[in-house]
This record gives sequence, C-alpha cells and structure tokens, in this order.
Amino acid sequence: MAHKVQETNMDVDYVVVFRVPDDDKQTGAEQFQKLIRALAETGLATEVRRNDETSLFIFVKAADEKTLTQVVYRSRIKDWLHGIRQIQPTQDTAQTLTSEPLTEAERYRMIHHMICCPREEGGAGITPKHGEWKAVEAVFPLHDHAKNKKWLTEFSQKTFLTPDDLDEVRNTMGEKIGYYYAFLQTYFSFLIFPAAFGLSAWVLLGNYSAIYAIVNGLWCVVFVEYWKRQEEELAIRWGVKNVGKIEDKRREFIPDKVITDSITGEQIPYFPSKKRLQRQLLQIPLAALCVIALGAVICTCFAIEIFISEVYNGPLKSVLVFLPTIILTLAVPTITNYLTQFAERLTFYENYETQDAHDKAMISKVFVINFITSYLGIILTSFVYVPFASLLVPYLDIFSLTVRPFAEHEKQFQTPPPAAFTINPNRLKNQMIYFAVTAQLVNFAMETVVPLVTQKGTKKYKEMQSARAEKSGGAAPSISANDPPEEKEFLTRVREEAALPEYDVTSDLREMVIQFGYLALFSVIWPATPVSYFINNWIELRGDTFKLTMESRRPNPARADTLGPWLDSMEFLAWLGSITTAALVYMFSGGDGPDGKPHAIRLWALLLSVLLSEHIFLVVRMAVRHAISKFDSSAMRKERSERFMVRKKFLEEAGLADAIKPVASPPNSPLKTASGEQAFTSMISRESLEEDARADSLTTARPADHFWHHQRTWAESERVGIGMIDLMDLKGKGEKKAQ
Amino acid sequence: MAHKVQETNMDVDYVVVFRVPDDDKQTGAEQFQKLIRALAETGLATEVRRNDETSLFIFVKAADEKTLTQVVYRSRIKDWLHGIRQIQPTQDTAQTLTSEPLTEAERYRMIHHMICCPREEGGAGITPKHGEWKAVEAVFPLHDHAKNKKWLTEFSQKTFLTPDDLDEVRNTMGEKIGYYYAFLQTYFSFLIFPAAFGLSAWVLLGNYSAIYAIVNGLWCVVFVEYWKRQEEELAIRWGVKNVGKIEDKRREFIPDKVITDSITGEQIPYFPSKKRLQRQLLQIPLAALCVIALGAVICTCFAIEIFISEVYNGPLKSVLVFLPTIILTLAVPTITNYLTQFAERLTFYENYETQDAHDKAMISKVFVINFITSYLGIILTSFVYVPFASLLVPYLDIFSLTVRPFAEHEKQFQTPPPAAFTINPNRLKNQMIYFAVTAQLVNFAMETVVPLVTQKGTKKYKEMQSARAEKSGGAAPSISANDPPEEKEFLTRVREEAALPEYDVTSDLREMVIQFGYLALFSVIWPATPVSYFINNWIELRGDTFKLTMESRRPNPARADTLGPWLDSMEFLAWLGSITTAALVYMFSGGDGPDGKPHAIRLWALLLSVLLSEHIFLVVRMAVRHAISKFDSSAMRKERSERFMVRKKFLEEAGLADAIKPVASPPNSPLKTASGEQAFTSMISRESLEEDARADSLTTARPADHFWHHQRTWAESERVGIGMIDLMDLKGKGEKKAQ
Repeated sequence: MAHKVQETNMDVDYVVVFRVPDDDKQTGAEQFQKLIRALAETGLATEVRRNDETSLFIFVKAADEKTLTQVVYRSRIKDWLHGIRQIQPTQDTAQTLTSEPLTEAERYRMIHHMICCPREEGGAGITPKHGEWKAVEAVFPLHDHAKNKKWLTEFSQKTFLTPDDLDEVRNTMGEKIGYYYAFLQTYFSFLIFPAAFGLSAWVLLGNYSAIYAIVNGLWCVVFVEYWKRQEEELAIRWGVKNVGKIEDKRREFIPDKVITDSITGEQIPYFPSKKRLQRQLLQIPLAALCVIALGAVICTCFAIEIFISEVYNGPLKSVLVFLPTIILTLAVPTITNYLTQFAERLTFYENYETQDAHDKAMISKVFVINFITSYLGIILTSFVYVPFASLLVPYLDIFSLTVRPFAEHEKQFQTPPPAAFTINPNRLKNQMIYFAVTAQLVNFAMETVVPLVTQKGTKKYKEMQSARAEKSGGAAPSISANDPPEEKEFLTRVREEAALPEYDVTSDLREMVIQFGYLALFSVIWPATPVSYFINNWIELRGDTFKLTMESRRPNPARADTLGPWLDSMEFLAWLGSITTAALVYMFSGGDGPDGKPHAIRLWALLLSVLLSEHIFLVVRMAVRHAISKFDSSAMRKERSERFMVRKKFLEEAGLADAIKPVASPPNSPLKTASGEQAFTSMISRESLEEDARADSLTTARPADHFWHHQRTWAESERVGIGMIDLMDLKGKGEKKAQ
Repeated sequence: MAHKVQETNMDVDYVVVFRVPDDDKQTGAEQFQKLIRALAETGLATEVRRNDETSLFIFVKAADEKTLTQVVYRSRIKDWLHGIRQIQPTQDTAQTLTSEPLTEAERYRMIHHMICCPREEGGAGITPKHGEWKAVEAVFPLHDHAKNKKWLTEFSQKTFLTPDDLDEVRNTMGEKIGYYYAFLQTYFSFLIFPAAFGLSAWVLLGNYSAIYAIVNGLWCVVFVEYWKRQEEELAIRWGVKNVGKIEDKRREFIPDKVITDSITGEQIPYFPSKKRLQRQLLQIPLAALCVIALGAVICTCFAIEIFISEVYNGPLKSVLVFLPTIILTLAVPTITNYLTQFAERLTFYENYETQDAHDKAMISKVFVINFITSYLGIILTSFVYVPFASLLVPYLDIFSLTVRPFAEHEKQFQTPPPAAFTINPNRLKNQMIYFAVTAQLVNFAMETVVPLVTQKGTKKYKEMQSARAEKSGGAAPSISANDPPEEKEFLTRVREEAALPEYDVTSDLREMVIQFGYLALFSVIWPATPVSYFINNWIELRGDTFKLTMESRRPNPARADTLGPWLDSMEFLAWLGSITTAALVYMFSGGDGPDGKPHAIRLWALLLSVLLSEHIFLVVRMAVRHAISKFDSSAMRKERSERFMVRKKFLEEAGLADAIKPVASPPNSPLKTASGEQAFTSMISRESLEEDARADSLTTARPADHFWHHQRTWAESERVGIGMIDLMDLKGKGEKKAQ
C-alpha cells in the first residue's frame, strides 16, 4: 500500500464528519454546537480537527469507562431479556467489562449505539444525512491497520480460513460481515467436490451429462441445508441467536394511528397489516415492469446479436457484433438503477415498522431485478434460441435497420429461409463459459482494481492540483499544513479513510448468490464451471478483504444471525435448478441438442423429465433436511446444557430448587409411623371408631364421605383388598367350566 | 341411555383396575400390596372394592389438598421454566390453587401424573399392563355424567359449537381432545363454502369443472393455512404453547450408552442419531411392502370386479359382482393389521427417546397405510381404468377362473376385443359418490351404532347368564350382591365404565384427514361431495361425542399444542390434490372423459396442466401463508403484551428497572455545572493548564494522550470547532472557481 501503516488510532473510537451546509456559517455553527452538546450529554468525549475546506472531524471516544460500562450492561440485560444470552449479566455493573471483556466489534457497536440511537433510549440520536442531522456526513470507526495488514498477508497464504480467522473477522467487523466470510468460506470448501467431479465429468462424460446434473442437484441441496445448520451453529458460537427478534424501530415508519395497549398501557404506533398487504400487491406490477423493461432490452439485444452474428455477413461484422453488448452495457445498469429506485420507493411506501422487515422486502425486490439481468440472456439462448431459432430468425429482418448503413448490398442482411438456417451449436456453451470465467474476471476488476485505480488517480490529481496552486502562488496553504506535526500522519490517514466509500456487504453476498444460481441452473452446460468458481472464490475472498480493509471505510459493526432473504433466494435457485437442468439434459444430452427446430423436441418427454426431476429434488431435499436435523452438533448440545444450568441456578437462587425435585412422601403418611399390618390393626381401636361415628354425625352425611370412610388408611385398604383376593373363586371358575 | 344418570362420583379421582394374574393368589396379593403402598407413598388415598370374579377396583383420590397443591405447583414451575407459562407462579404454594383454580382436566392430569410418572419424578411409577405392573389392567377417571348428558343435548340442538363449548371440552377432557373438537368445528364451518359452491357448480357446471377445481384447490390452501394459525391461537388461549417441548422420556427407550454431560455433569442416556437414521431407512422397504401387499390385493379385486361387471354376463352376475368387495372387506383389514404391527415394531426398533417422537414416527407410517387403502381404488379407476381399460381388459381373462364354475358357456366370460369394449362412463362418479355418501354412513354405523349394539348385547347376555345360573341354583351369588346398598348404583356404573374400550382420538382425527383427502384429491369428480361431508360432519361431531362419553372410558387428559403429523398429512394431500385435480379436469372436462383408449389423451397436455396447476398451487400457498402471517390476532397481541409485562415486572423485582431506562447524563458532565461558553473559558485557568502539564509529564507521553488533551471539555471542542468554521473559506472557494 502507498500509505505507511500506522499502528495507533489515538484511542479514537469513532469519527464524525461534519460538513458545513451550503456556505452558511451561521447555521453550520449552530448545528455544530448542537452536535457537540448532544455527544457530550450522552457521555462521549470529543476532539475537533479540520478535515477539508468545508468540513470538520469530530473524534469521539467514551468519556469514561463507567459510562461505557453502563451502556454495555444495559445492552446485555436487553439481550438477556430477549433470550439472546442465556446467562444473566452479573448485577454488579463494575464487573461487567472484566467478567466478559468486550470484543472490538462490540465496543464499536456500543459507541455507535450511543451516537445514533434515539434520545429516549439513551443515545445522542444522531441520524447522519437525515432530518435535523443533515450536516453530519458520516459516522464511522477507524481501521485497525495492523490487523488489516495481518489479514491480507495471512489470508493470501492459506487455502482455507480457520474458524479462528472467522472469529477474528467477527470480533473486529461484527457478526454481519462475519456471516459473509463464514458463508464464503463454507461455499468455497463445498465447491471442492463439484469442482473435482465437474472436471472429471467434463473430461469423461462431456457436456450435458445427466450424471453430472444429478450430482450437481444433490450437491446444491446438501450445501443449502448444511449452510442453514452452519448458520444456527455460528449463531450459538457467536452468541447472536435470536438477535433478529430485537427489532429496532425504523425512524421512517409512519404510523396510521397510535393505539393504547390494553394490557401494558403502552402507546403503540400502529399501521394496519391489511393496508400494508394492499400496498405489497404493488410488487406484482413492479415485477411485471422489471420483466418488461429489462426483458425488452435484453431480448432486443439478444435478437440483434443473433441477427448480426448469424445472418449478417457484410463488412464490419466483427465490429458490429459488439453493438448489442455495448447497448446492454449502457442500458441495463441505467434501467436497473431506475428500477431499484422504484423498488426503494415502493419499499418505503410499504412502511415497515422495523429496519429488518424493510431490508428483507428490499432484498427480495433486488433479487427479482438481479435474476432477470443475470439469467434472462442464458435462458433465452437455451429455451428460445436453441429450440425455436429457425422459426424466429425470419422475423429478425426488422433488425436489418441496425446494419443497413454498413451493408454493401441487400443480400448481406437477408434472413435465410428456415430450412437454410443452421444455428450456432456452441453459442450456449460459449455463453456459459463467459459467465463462468470472463464475467468473473471482469467483475473482479470492476470491484477491486477499478476503485483502487480511481482512488490512486484522484489522490494524484488532487496532489498535482494543490502543487500547481501552490506554485502559482496566492492560494491558501493546504489545510494539512496546519496540522500539529505529531498528528500529521494520523490526520492524513483519517482524511483518506473518510474519502473512501462505505462497504456494502449485501452486494458481495448478492454476487455469491447469483454465482450459486449459475451453478444450480446452468452448470450442466459446461461442467467445468465449478472449477472456475472455485478458483474465483479463493480470489474473491482475498479481494473482498482488500476492498473491506483498503478501499472502504470501516463499517459499523452490526449483528445478524442469518443471511436472511439470501438464503431463501438460494433455496429457490436450487429448486429452479432441478427444473432447468432436467430440461437442458433432456434437450441436449447425446449431441448438440436441437438444431433450432422445435419438432425434434417431444414436449411430453421434456415435461415428464422436468416433472420427475423436480419431484425427486423435493423428496431428496426433505430427506436431507430430516437427516441434518437429526444430527446434534456439539454447539447445540452445549447450548441446551447451558440453558439447563441457567434454569437450575435460577431456581436455586429463588429458593425453589426443591420444586423440581420429587415430592417426598407426605410427612404424616402412615408409612412413616408404622410399617406392618399389626400396627394398624391395633390403631383401629375402639376410640377411633367412635371418633368416626361422631365425625360422621357432625358432617352432613354425604354419600362420598361414607364411601371414603370404609377404609381409613392405606393399610386398611391393603388388608381389605388382600381379603377380597383371598375370597376370589379363581380355581373354582376354571373347574366350573370344565364340568 | 339405559342406565340412569347418577350425579355423584363419590369424590373419586381415578379408578385403578387390578386383575389377579393367572389364578395365582399369592403373587396377586403381593403385587396388590406393592400397588397400594406405592399409591399411598405418593400421597394418594385409596378405597378398595370388588370388580368382578378376578379383579378389584382401587379408587384413588388425592390424600389431602396440600399434596395436590405441591404437585400442581411443581408442574406449573416446570411449565414456566419451559416457556409454556409466561407468568411465574406465586412462591406461596398455599395460594397455588386459589389464585388459579384447576380445571377438571388439569386436576385429572395431575392425579394421573402422580399415579403414572416415574418415582424419580415423584410419582408412583405405575405403568399399566407393562413390566412389574402387569396386573394393573387400567387407570382411568370416571365420567361426569351430568356434563356428558348436557353436551349430548346441547350439541344436538345447535349447528356450530361456540368457543365456550370448545373451552368446556378442553376443561373437561384435556387439550388433546379439545384440539380435535376445535379442528372438527373449524373444518365443519369451512365446509359451508365448498358445500354451497360445490352444489351450484354441480347444478350449473356439471362434473369435472375447471372452475370448481380452482376454487376447491384455493379453499384447501386457505383452510390448511388458517387452521395452522388457529392452532397457534388456541395454544395461546389454552396456555399450552410450546407444550411439545416438555419431552416426556419414553420408558421403552434403550440407550446405547450413558454419557456424562461436560457442562451439567448429568448422566444422559444416549443413542446415536446415525444409528437411528440407518434404522429409519427400513421405512423404505416397509413402504414398499405396504404398496405391494395392499396394492396387489386392491388391484386384483379391482380387476376381478371389472371383469365380472363388464365382461362376464352369465348367471349370478348380480351376486358375483360383490365377490371382490367381500374379498376386500376380509383381506384389507387383515393385511392392514399385519402391516400396522410391522410398523409398530419398526417404530419401536427406531428407539425414540421421547413419546412424542415415537408417536409422530408411528403416525406417519399409519398415514402411508391409510393412504393406500383409502385412495388406491379411486386412483386405479381414474388413472388406469379410464385411460387404459380397452388395452387391459383383454388380459383380464385370467380372472375367468373366478366365474368359470358359474358360467353356462365360455362366451359368457370371454374378454371382448379392444375395439368392442366400451367402458362404463359412470364408474368413476359412482365410486366417488360411494366414498362421499355410502362409506360415510357405513363408517358412522361401524363407529357408533355397532359398539352400542354390542355393548347392549353383551350386557343382556351376561344378565341372562347370571339369571340362568341363579335359577339353576348352586352358583355363587353375583358379586354385585355384596355391594353396600348405598354404593350399589355407583359401583354398577363403575363396572360398566371399566368394561368400555379406551377412546382413541387419533383414529377419529385420521378419519377426518382422510375425508379431507377425498375432498382435495377427487371431489372434482362429483362437486356435490362437500355437501355430503358437511352434513356428515355435523353428525360426526355428535357421534364422536356420544362415543367419547357413552361408549368409551373417560380418557386421561393430555396436553397438545398442535395436530402434529396430521397437519403435515393435510398439507401433503392439498398439494397432491393440485396434481390429481388438474389431471382429472384435463382428462374428463367437457365429456365423459377418455373411453378407455389412451390415444385420446395427449400426454404433453396432461403433463403441462399438472405442472402448471402444481406451481400455481405452490405460489398461491406462499402468498396465502404470507398474508395470514401478517395478520396479528388479538390472542397473539395479548401474548406479546403479557410477555412484556412479565419482563418488566421481573426487572422491577430484581431492582434492575433502570437498566432498561435511558442513561441519564453522566453526573459529572460539564453540562450540569455550567451552561454557557463564558463559564468554561474561565475554567481553563492557569492552574488547570499547569495541572495538565504535570499530568502529562507524569504519564508516559503517549501520542494519544496528547491528542485528547488539545480540547479538555466539550465546551472547548465547541469553541475550537466554531472557530474553525469561522475560518472556513466558503465563499472564497466559490469565487475562486468563478475567476
């Protein structure tokens, strides 16, 4: 890296970037005052430094350990009440931090909580870029450069991350990013099998092998189900199980009315579910819009490409063939952008009460958009071009417009008659290879290399600009020139970090899920796909680490106990894979597949293979789920034991320990006073019988009382019963029958 | 009813029937002694009476309220620890019964618990008919005849049971039976819609209507999903949510080894899941066996029936046609019986740790058997006979054996050539009408009328016999002659109840699930089916009440919070319905369907309709699930509020109430001592600065300390920051650019 790694963060917990709004020093000063006071009231110490021309850094740390301890204690109590922690925090707040030391991520989470959570809950209530805190541009912690460097070195030297590495990621960056790393790691390890098998299948069985399809489908099921279990175990290991239940209210939630809870007397902001469901119905037109808008562009480009590559044979063909790709590259991101904005607005309109529900709703919409942009092209090739090309190609002459200016004579863009047309048998395979190899490389470049270059370039440009300004004289000396010399290096680094974009784990996760989708849906086209993904994902994890540590601000640590909606997406893709794979295998296995003429495909056979494949998939999934659910992991056993111990301890403390012990014989039980029959016979003395009579005459003579006074103790019952048994005519009965 | 309703149960809680084993008075007396002592030690009072020649009644009640209170208190603490109760029971055990009175069912459950639960857990450990307690024939409570009579009268006078009625059933018979009644009631109410719609569809659209099929499928989804929600609400209403988590260990569980828990130090009997999974694999051959054994019989009878009814035309046809039905009626129950025994043995071999898991495994096996016996016949008609009859009929001549003795000449049982054969177009409809109407009537008779007649007959026979014996003289006087006169009536009644069979709620539930299956899978054949079921189920509920109260011993109250595996079965049937219904509609709509020749069916169209129908079903189910999950019921809201209150109360009691309140400003915060800037400027006096210097020289000069000493209070930060803002060259920048 260009900048030197500096070890100290000056004890700074968080940096708040304050930008004076719109050339208005007056408001700026007022808002700044409000900000500093809000932070101080919450118990945070502050130091102010200059950032750039119009913005300040406010460095924040906990004013004293006591305040922080209070915050940690309250957070742990809350966790305990929501069932996230099994063990009740000790009541001695002084011991809070020593008995269970904070991880770095937890500390930052606490400070972030103090800065950002609403005043009613004890925070400063700062909402960056929102409402009254518009001037607050960013709130972020500083990178731990020593650790970052260590990660980059270590991770690049090993094939697999160890559980300890994952724990360290979690301890530093929080559980949400920890989950991403754990997922990527599990996925990477799981890829070994399809990579090895796929390679052999590719060599031995060729493309479109039914055996590969079955093994791949099975692998998808096992992987998804295994990850679900893994997720649960990680939640236990990291102490975040049920963390989704702590529902942070969304600031933007607009209640319809406020109702009073009849039991707790609380005022609850209320928005009727029925109204929300009605609004959610708008998702259907949104999805339709996505399909139409993106579908139209993708289909058009697809058609143009086919037209140019397979019909047109005039000049500039080799250049023109890139035309549709260029259109796609320009149009799709634009449309996607618009659609995402629509989706965002709709999600806001759906007005969720919690951030979690909001995010889920948004992710499911994003998935629909991504599904279309990622898979529609290859779906068109497999299920439209290959079977129907010879029927459709004649209609492509409307696209002759695109090449007319370049063509020399009409014949060059005349569509051939269906009979003369032959499809390009390698188109599908080439497309899959593109997604498996080229697209991954492009993506890596876009994600990791481009930002680095941009970042470097911008820095260089700024330096050159300020150098020129200095040379031309008269310009104000650069701001950094005023930094205290001993802080110079530190402040430079903070300025660099503040200039970086935020890290978005969701987009990295999405990328992996989409990749899993290619594997599940189409890898049968080219069974070497998993090999490429295996290699790619090794780089991916290191690239993401680089992005996280070098090209992004350090993220605010967040907790999570699941990948959430992405997991559902993967389940859906695995299911869909059972359908597409069966269809592909049926159409293509044993040759190059249909030659663009649908007559070769028997629809019933196609449908039957799809139907069979899908139902076998569902049955296998049920079986795998069942089997996995039966295996008790050590983490789960540990959790159960812990729960048991907590209960036991609780009862002991409450003096209720004997409440779960067996009841002892009642103290006055006759068994304790006498143990033989003789003792009892003597007990039924004259006196006691008389007493009976008296008691009976005193009570109203209920038949039930008479009934229960026949035998007054268990011993009497015993005696009477044995007497009855003695009277029984057991043998007699048998003899009588024999007569 | 024949016997007079007697109001008093003599305060008897439970009756234990003790039968002297195998003519052996000695062992009998010993075991009896052991039994009486075990009961007395547990805190139960006993009275002994004679039952019949070889058995005794031991009447049991709680010895005193104190013991019972203890048991109730312990049970409630256990519930609370397992999260079934929200509210912690008061620690004052004396108040246990007054603060929350016991329902009848709960009281009986407690007494049953005392009698039957293992000694380690404070019970007498009696296991009727098992192990050392082989002589204990039965353990049951006595019917509340007044209430029974009231139910029979009331229920027969109303169309719908009210929630109060259901509560009363639950309070008297326990939650398990309460759930059955609630389910039957919900199902009955839900049937109104398909009954009305089905009737109109039958009149207006005829059979095999696609519209009816869609509505029916939708109804199935909504009903199943609604019931799931209903179940949850009932669990809250009845306070049994999570009751499944209290896992009663099975006595019969055989651990592989005993392991010591590393955390709790408990000795845990352990059986590896892997081994169990291997044993569970035996379910596959078992299912295959069921299919083969039952399938062979059913297919054979089916073929014979077709042969006789549609090929044979010799004498005695009208009689012979019942031959297959007779074979079925004799063979199927026998085979089912064997298979059930196999299933039972396999379930035992699978060696489950808890009764719950054992029951679930057993029910799923029973469902497979029932599925075959119930639906295979009609599946054969719809998907084999109707499309393939003309191809298969020629092969039926092997069954000519069955009629050869009766036929007059060969022609009478010669199979016609395929071309000459015409299928019976009404066969499928008639079969469905049989299942919708006739089978229900037969079933009702078998279930309610036959036991009544048998019971009456046996009683009469016994009376006659004893009368004859008395007349012929010499015989021992009947045992009832020795009863104390005031107990005569009571004891007669107890003897009658002891002679009754046990009530098995599972079989009633199974019957309803199978009925639901006919509705989901085949009702499109004859859309009036739901009307018949609607009427039948009104009677069914009353009949079951009669069976429960008059023809069975009173069951031991059991808790439950779900229908369990039956719910899964219904989900499966609804899903399967989407497939069969689509197939039936495709094949039959717009006529009598195929004429036994498969050429009329286009396989691709059939498969396509099945595929579409199934996937629409799955999407709709997801949507319905989503919608239902979003509606908050009042019961759920109440539960949440209660949980909140419990937490709040707990924190208050533990003196932690302020732990969830916001942190106040730290006490020494500068904001409290001074509020303006002036005050602070003066605070930075000479002394304090000197103090700084001293402090700095004392500490090792860490750069971080220097960093944080620039601004020592929030007010200084504020001042410095405002100063910086003042220095900002905001306008200047803009101007410079403009130059």
